[in-house]
Amino acid sequence: MAAIKVHGSPFSTASQRVFATLYEKDVDFEFVNVDMRTGEHKKEPFLSLNPFGQVPAYQEGDLTLFESRAITDHIAQKFASKGAQLVTGEAEMKVWLQVEINHFEPASSQLGWEQVFKPMFGMTTDPAAVEANEAKLTKVLDVYEARLSKSKYLGGDQFTLVDLHHLPNLQCLIGTPTKKLLDSRPKVSAWIADITGRPAWAKVLAMQKH
Amino acid sequence: MAAIKVHGSPFSTASQRVFATLYEKDVDFEFVNVDMRTGEHKKEPFLSLNPFGQVPAYQEGDLTLFESRAITDHIAQKFASKGAQLVTGEAEMKVWLQVEINHFEPASSQLGWEQVFKPMFGMTTDPAAVEANEAKLTKVLDVYEARLSKSKYLGGDQFTLVDLHHLPNLQCLIGTPTKKLLDSRPKVSAWIADITGRPAWAKVLAMQKH
Repeated sequence: MAAIKVHGSPFSTASQRVFATLYEKDVDFEFVNVDMRTGEHKKEPFLSLNPFGQVPAYQEGDLTLFESRAITDHIAQKFASKGAQLVTGEAEMKVWLQVEINHFEPASSQLGWEQVFKPMFGMTTDPAAVEANEAKLTKVLDVYEARLSKSKYLGGDQFTLVDLHHLPNLQCLIGTPTKKLLDSRPKVSAWIADITGRPAWAKVLAMQKH
Repeated sequence: MAAIKVHGSPFSTASQRVFATLYEKDVDFEFVNVDMRTGEHKKEPFLSLNPFGQVPAYQEGDLTLFESRAITDHIAQKFASKGAQLVTGEAEMKVWLQVEINHFEPASSQLGWEQVFKPMFGMTTDPAAVEANEAKLTKVLDVYEARLSKSKYLGGDQFTLVDLHHLPNLQCLIGTPTKKLLDSRPKVSAWIADITGRPAWAKVLAMQKH
């Protein structure tokens, strides 16, 4: 088997999606840190891995991939027989994969940017942006609460990439006042406690301490 | 085979993705018009099909799906042996499916909104929004021009869902001053001429005339 390299950062939510998938599948990989503070991802040689200049990038022998959700899908299919089963092959799962991208990600990543990353970079949080995105997230979480009353996980009855893709932004929000929107929904908060409690996710968070 | 119903609008870019896929696969379907001017998509019974209140929704017997790209993927897999082959199963295709979602769609849909839909609804185009999104689209098209110098289509050497997913927003942009960004790139404009010339796409456009 060709050695796997993941170029990214333990602090990048997109990179975390890929790390979590590899840990869930119990697949060995080499982590190559991309120093985003010096803009390493916007220069060669990184641009040869991803012309859009974003982490992560994934190498497996001659195969180079970018876009975190394409990489997780590839890993889940390629290592289908190892570790946790992360795909079901059902059309329903495809729907909820898209819901994460088109509904959860835009609102939650903006809330993470305003409340976690801006303060980290010495920038000021914009309360109007927080309010607007909390309103958007509220609608998404209302749909999730109803969905999780019918199935144990978002993509169906088992933990899949759908849930895993939510982990990085959820983890961000847990450390912000937006947590109140999560806590006030019983099914959503039980789901978050379940999926953030997975050993693979603890390994991703541990990468930030090195 | 269970009868297929697509609830949507011939003027909705997301609905057009699903129509185009069904025509490419030569699969019969019943089109159910959702009157978006009266907000039919934001009320029951449509909300039972898609809790997010967006067209299209897809029914096939007991199966109900929403999110256009989940529906196209389902159709391409389910009717693999009919019509055009729209998926390759290669990881590369997954990357470019995500590129359309995360890079092309945000800029192009904003440009369509500002220059096509706002005037249609009697609203005023915001030149600053046009400028900002043209700058974003320029970067995407530069990557596409390089990509299309190496492979005939975005997802690889054959026409796939990757290209098809671009059609609705491309068709919108062709009718706006943003067309200059497409025309000035030889590989991109040859690709657009090729994919907009497909008979299945002509059938989608013909739906607007009924």
